[in-house]
Amino acid sequence: MAIRHIVVMKFREGTTPDAVQALADALRGLPAVIPEIVDYRVGPDLGLADDSWDFAVSADFDDVDGFRTYREHPDHLAIIRDLIAPHVESRHSVQFDT
Amino acid sequence: MAIRHIVVMKFREGTTPDAVQALADALRGLPAVIPEIVDYRVGPDLGLADDSWDFAVSADFDDVDGFRTYREHPDHLAIIRDLIAPHVESRHSVQFDT
Repeated sequence: MAIRHIVVMKFREGTTPDAVQALADALRGLPAVIPEIVDYRVGPDLGLADDSWDFAVSADFDDVDGFRTYREHPDHLAIIRDLIAPHVESRHSVQFDT
Repeated sequence: MAIRHIVVMKFREGTTPDAVQALADALRGLPAVIPEIVDYRVGPDLGLADDSWDFAVSADFDDVDGFRTYREHPDHLAIIRDLIAPHVESRHSVQFDT
């Protein structure tokens, strides 16, 4: 069962473009260290809709184990701790069968 | 600029599996009537994480105009009105450059 894991985030007021760029850059390094990631796209919202949130992650895996490996990978957890958690006000995710 | 539009939804308590299946089936018919959709994946959450929401939409477009055509397409608006709005408690989306 192929899985897509999608995340939407809303940042705290005052989160700088540099902080967003730093977390995007860090996340984009994960496929190089987590081969279970089949496809990985992240980025800031483009401002096309009034009610959109601020940042997206879309990650594909071949199976549930791949998703779990990603979720628990120490490099991923370090990014969450150091670059995401300090800025995120709200976050929601869904994992679904693609 | 290729765009991915992702949506996460949380349903009201009491939303039935049949209602979720009906909205998933209806959404999956949209690529046949909206050729601007390049790739389209929707589905219910798999229950892999405690804090996940209930349903996801992931739609790819070649450009901003394609996204806008989808967003405003009457068949899409009818699904939102008849099959999504009655059940959705919360919804968040992000459009980002892939």
